[in-house]
Amino acid sequence: LEVRERVEEVLAYPEGTVGRIMHPEVAVIRPDVSLDVVLRYLRQRKSLRRQTDGLMVIDRDNNYLGKLSYTALLTSDPAMTVSEVMLPEADSVRADTPETDLAILFERRDLVSVAVLDDGDKLVGVVTADDVLDIVREQADQQILNMAGLEEEEDLFAPVLPSAKRRAVWLGINLITAFLAAWVIGLFEATIDKIVALAVLMPIVASMGGIAGSQTLTLAIRGLALGQISSANTRWLAFKEIGVGMLNGVFWAVVVGAIAFVWFGSVGIGLVISAAMVLNLLAAALSGVAIPLILDRLGIDPALSGAVVLTTVTDVVGFMSFLGLATLFLL
Amino acid sequence: LEVRERVEEVLAYPEGTVGRIMHPEVAVIRPDVSLDVVLRYLRQRKSLRRQTDGLMVIDRDNNYLGKLSYTALLTSDPAMTVSEVMLPEADSVRADTPETDLAILFERRDLVSVAVLDDGDKLVGVVTADDVLDIVREQADQQILNMAGLEEEEDLFAPVLPSAKRRAVWLGINLITAFLAAWVIGLFEATIDKIVALAVLMPIVASMGGIAGSQTLTLAIRGLALGQISSANTRWLAFKEIGVGMLNGVFWAVVVGAIAFVWFGSVGIGLVISAAMVLNLLAAALSGVAIPLILDRLGIDPALSGAVVLTTVTDVVGFMSFLGLATLFLL
Repeated sequence: LEVRERVEEVLAYPEGTVGRIMHPEVAVIRPDVSLDVVLRYLRQRKSLRRQTDGLMVIDRDNNYLGKLSYTALLTSDPAMTVSEVMLPEADSVRADTPETDLAILFERRDLVSVAVLDDGDKLVGVVTADDVLDIVREQADQQILNMAGLEEEEDLFAPVLPSAKRRAVWLGINLITAFLAAWVIGLFEATIDKIVALAVLMPIVASMGGIAGSQTLTLAIRGLALGQISSANTRWLAFKEIGVGMLNGVFWAVVVGAIAFVWFGSVGIGLVISAAMVLNLLAAALSGVAIPLILDRLGIDPALSGAVVLTTVTDVVGFMSFLGLATLFLL
Repeated sequence: LEVRERVEEVLAYPEGTVGRIMHPEVAVIRPDVSLDVVLRYLRQRKSLRRQTDGLMVIDRDNNYLGKLSYTALLTSDPAMTVSEVMLPEADSVRADTPETDLAILFERRDLVSVAVLDDGDKLVGVVTADDVLDIVREQADQQILNMAGLEEEEDLFAPVLPSAKRRAVWLGINLITAFLAAWVIGLFEATIDKIVALAVLMPIVASMGGIAGSQTLTLAIRGLALGQISSANTRWLAFKEIGVGMLNGVFWAVVVGAIAFVWFGSVGIGLVISAAMVLNLLAAALSGVAIPLILDRLGIDPALSGAVVLTTVTDVVGFMSFLGLATLFLL
């Protein structure tokens, strides 16, 4: 039984890997000793890290062989040897694994601790459930911040100037997409000049498309993160979301068309906004599925930039279809 | 040492409480026995739940006294008694506690397991770190779904009709706010009729306000969830966010104003959109702080409805300030 400290080794692994968060101090044991000997050793040792659930079993070359859990040690005959009682197939993880993969491993196997190995299968540390809980919380927090274009470092209590600077970037990106939408509207200035009601109603078409699209987008991003989306079901998924978009498109098109007709007393405006709503909700459904898949394939995190790209599409399609149809049929 | 099963008790606790997810099967021990006796008992018992890290210590009336951790049991002199070695101040939690509070407890204390007590301080079960990990993951998942107006049950692979129905509700809520924005634009029909460029530029003001406001909102919601916001710092926070809104408002107002001037060749339009941008980013900052605080006080989850309320404010203020200033100064 021995304990080794290798703090330098922890610092040698890159940020975000299991090696960087592991505890290098591990209580280890050889496979050929009896449990009775282990129990006597432990009594001499006087302490064990509270969050661990067992001793790691290694050979003389520091190769990982398995885990001797405290519960097995306590409930087995002391005359047995470590190798008879240990879990030889106990989970282990490579030090260069991304720390985000730990959560899935711990969740699937209901682990309390896992051995960390280097690329030569030597034991270099241990990660415990309390570490994983911290990672999962941080990850969730970060995802929500990222969705609002905020960096991890952003803090409610940061000073004004650095806060303003950090947030300005996201506002700038959004401004480009807002000008793109404005440019589309600008193409139809002559139409709006003749029918001002179009200017009043056009944000409704764009906004409904944005909301419907972000629902599909959120589900698709989650599906990607959970590994539920493959090339086998992408097509089915696209058809399903188009179905949902079509149903909601038609339903809300009737509602919006009726209100627009009553408000402006024009059957034409009612019909044009209805058609534009259906078109934009279909575009929203398609882009909600396609955008995260394309971004993912390009190596861009869809959780970070998916929403901007999506609302750009739904704004452009929304204004284009509504004002375009009005130009064709109402002038 | 005894194990009791009380599955009925688990079902007696409401969904979302610790009692509903606890394991009623707990390995318990009396305080007056020696560790040697405990070790002998455990060897006869032959198994212990893998995710536990100790035995719960109770008196003959089932009152919880503390925890005998496996690490303490393994490293202490077998002649000592349970009461000498146990952690008498070991954490416990009431069965009627919301399960969401468990994550904070486990995270702060780096726990592997915690005793669950009924309202008479009797031991009724145990919760382990693997349960808490599941809760944290579900909670994070739910928050992200809720932000897009999706229910927990929503699934990427659900059939079209139930999916469309569930998502229609959120689209309907959004439609009301979209019509509110349209109504504000409608107040200025005469102005737009005279200066069509206003219709082209007005979505930019609304959109930038929405983005800036949602950044503040996200941080404020997180601050509320983490318990960082109190009546002592609300005022400071409001001033800080107004400062950020002012800086970004002025900066982007200059950019947008310059582009609008070049695009439409009108100093007046450039000045009006600049002023409207500053006003809307200030409104966004104020509402980003105020809306979650007000919703929280009303007992409404700000993570669920905060964004809709916020974009309603930034749309209304954006259109109102831009078209209003244009009506005052450009006609």
